[in-house]
Amino acid sequence: MGCCHYPPVIEGCDSAFTVDTSRITFGRGCLSEVGDRARALGMKRVVLFSDARVARLAHFDKVLQSLRAAGLDVAVYTDVHVEPTDQSFLDAARFASEVKPDGYVSLGGGSVIDTCKAANLYATHPADLLAYVNAPVGEGRPVPGPLKPHIACPTTSGTGSEVTGITIFDLLSMEAKTGIASPALRPTEALIDPDCTATLPGEVVAASGLDVLSHALESYTARPYVRRPAPARPSLRPMSQGANPWSDLGCREALRLMGLYLERGVKDANDAEAREQLMWAATLAGIAFGNAGVHAPHGMAYAVAGRVRDFRPSGYPDDEPLVPHGMAVIVNAPAVFRYTASASPERHLEAAGHLGADVRDATPADAGEVLAGRLVHVMRAVGMPNGLGGVGYTGADVAALTEGAFPQQRLLQNAPREMTRPVLSELFHQALRYW
Amino acid sequence: MGCCHYPPVIEGCDSAFTVDTSRITFGRGCLSEVGDRARALGMKRVVLFSDARVARLAHFDKVLQSLRAAGLDVAVYTDVHVEPTDQSFLDAARFASEVKPDGYVSLGGGSVIDTCKAANLYATHPADLLAYVNAPVGEGRPVPGPLKPHIACPTTSGTGSEVTGITIFDLLSMEAKTGIASPALRPTEALIDPDCTATLPGEVVAASGLDVLSHALESYTARPYVRRPAPARPSLRPMSQGANPWSDLGCREALRLMGLYLERGVKDANDAEAREQLMWAATLAGIAFGNAGVHAPHGMAYAVAGRVRDFRPSGYPDDEPLVPHGMAVIVNAPAVFRYTASASPERHLEAAGHLGADVRDATPADAGEVLAGRLVHVMRAVGMPNGLGGVGYTGADVAALTEGAFPQQRLLQNAPREMTRPVLSELFHQALRYW
Repeated sequence: MGCCHYPPVIEGCDSAFTVDTSRITFGRGCLSEVGDRARALGMKRVVLFSDARVARLAHFDKVLQSLRAAGLDVAVYTDVHVEPTDQSFLDAARFASEVKPDGYVSLGGGSVIDTCKAANLYATHPADLLAYVNAPVGEGRPVPGPLKPHIACPTTSGTGSEVTGITIFDLLSMEAKTGIASPALRPTEALIDPDCTATLPGEVVAASGLDVLSHALESYTARPYVRRPAPARPSLRPMSQGANPWSDLGCREALRLMGLYLERGVKDANDAEAREQLMWAATLAGIAFGNAGVHAPHGMAYAVAGRVRDFRPSGYPDDEPLVPHGMAVIVNAPAVFRYTASASPERHLEAAGHLGADVRDATPADAGEVLAGRLVHVMRAVGMPNGLGGVGYTGADVAALTEGAFPQQRLLQNAPREMTRPVLSELFHQALRYW
Repeated sequence: MGCCHYPPVIEGCDSAFTVDTSRITFGRGCLSEVGDRARALGMKRVVLFSDARVARLAHFDKVLQSLRAAGLDVAVYTDVHVEPTDQSFLDAARFASEVKPDGYVSLGGGSVIDTCKAANLYATHPADLLAYVNAPVGEGRPVPGPLKPHIACPTTSGTGSEVTGITIFDLLSMEAKTGIASPALRPTEALIDPDCTATLPGEVVAASGLDVLSHALESYTARPYVRRPAPARPSLRPMSQGANPWSDLGCREALRLMGLYLERGVKDANDAEAREQLMWAATLAGIAFGNAGVHAPHGMAYAVAGRVRDFRPSGYPDDEPLVPHGMAVIVNAPAVFRYTASASPERHLEAAGHLGADVRDATPADAGEVLAGRLVHVMRAVGMPNGLGGVGYTGADVAALTEGAFPQQRLLQNAPREMTRPVLSELFHQALRYW
């Protein structure tokens, strides 16, 4: 446990780290707290964000009734797009601007929570869409002040969006995934009710669980905060500040829980203990990566998801081709960690151990192979596709995938080794097939 | 690691837990961030709270200069009392009411940060002192709204006050320690700079370190949140909500760090690594007990400190008799944990293991003895007095100590076994002498 010390600070690099966390409530049935909590935050008129699928579930009625029972005036928006775009963000913001709420509630997966963050931002501080978007794609303008209070209620054990200040979307005009990152976007409160995961298909638990696993693994192995150039002003220290002692704690526990419960939670929807622990791991990994940052597997995933041709995974809606986010991440992971291990072999080995690998006889030189091997073991155990080939890509796609991933510099620069175009290309090649 | 599952929820008890945390910045030299951070919070005119001793140190100048360099108008208050009282709180609040600041900065130990919280509260929401004080001593009225922003900068690795919503003082008219507990009191940000601890005497590091150790141990063994009666409304869930999976994480790591670094940090002021790790452990334990609550050792400590006769510890100012807070806590701890172990033997054993005890051959029936033995080992290693006898009490004082501790029901009810008067009396007897 906690093998890994930080190197000394060096001139020009940062010497401190900053941690922000939402108020979090976790427990079965806690969705029914939303009305009381909204009122305690001073809300009177709220917009409830969700999507059409979630709006048909019992959780949705529970939230709506709790809000109404608390005397709140509720406007409902369920047109959230599965993969949000600039257009869908603007549509949501327009709705919010018309309703003029004094607070927001979101109930759904990452798409719903991200859309609600964007609607809150643009309705509260109107601007051109690109104004707040991460540079160089957008202007990267700082959010000028606090947003309206937002209570985020996740229904999947995955994205961690309920505790981060990040929102991600497809910028249609550039065919690129991009996002907005600001502490102001972080929801005021998160209500995390493991009951929501009881009805999830095993395939969704698998993909979202591997997203969580990779949040933890990427944050744990990210470039340490003492190796990131110091910010111009301390208050501008980025949320993607690199691995730090705080994020390490959440990462280790999330990895340990994934090692114990992922396979159980995927294989048996009635294994309430496993599904609850996976939801808790998602929360911990969300807090960790929200204060450390992910790196190459996520940066590469945007290209993998964005260039999908005809892959249609079981367990997901069948209306359009889709590589689920967690799947698009994890297919890159074994190749990436085999490459990054030399930067911090002890951390990579320790992570493999938390995931359940036997590392007693492993040496630092084995770290990449041991961790990659454990990831492949987990992927096979929960029915993931065999690398990029398994989701429809071939060697002929590697150049395009590399071009798609390279602009994700906010993420790539958080990796512990340099992610040049040739490196990315090699990693995509390595990721084509694992077994 | 993480042996300890939670029992199922039972009718009438709570089924969720809520976590609140301040924004935290940790790292050497981070005190110089205070000006930029104060400005980023919108402060223009601040009161800087400290005490006469800290005001003579270099940290104080660093903070003052950083605030002034950021263009802030700074009023300084250094009359903080070592053991704050209702009178000293009111004096501080009067000062703040006259200055009318739009923000607060505190630099010092728990007394300074607690006084700043109280001044902010009564200057922002004026009321009779007893209005917000915990019932039954005070009215326990809820704080009516947010306070002004407060940046807390601890100079000892102890109280954790920089991340909690608790302030403690002596109510002179009743000769009792009491306090105010509200999420509104939690500082907006904490700036935790391990450089501050370089000049602390070893005795201070020992006593404040054992306060930290006991924060972690008490939170880890507190009555689990699922055994606390559910609150009338979810938004009234208390901060002393009992052990929960979130606080467990911080507790385990704080205990592990105490086991590794306390003795080193006490014995060698130049062991910068040890002192830094102790400061980090204090932060983690503060976050944990701020979201779980301490129990009997702290409840009993108020009586131990309050009834001091002529004990004058080395390393502390010599002007009045004093049992330092951490010392007043730890002298009770072995007796308490020997008694509470039967409520959760695995947790008690695991905690002993984190502190460095060899628990390989221990059975659950040994848990109390093993943990008490480890605590006595640590106490002796860092020069703590031999129980209550070592700070001047005898068997003749036990009745009065029991009467002094029993009113601390907010804390005592957070213990995993019932703390009746006869139990407290027996525990004080057991605590008279350990070796």
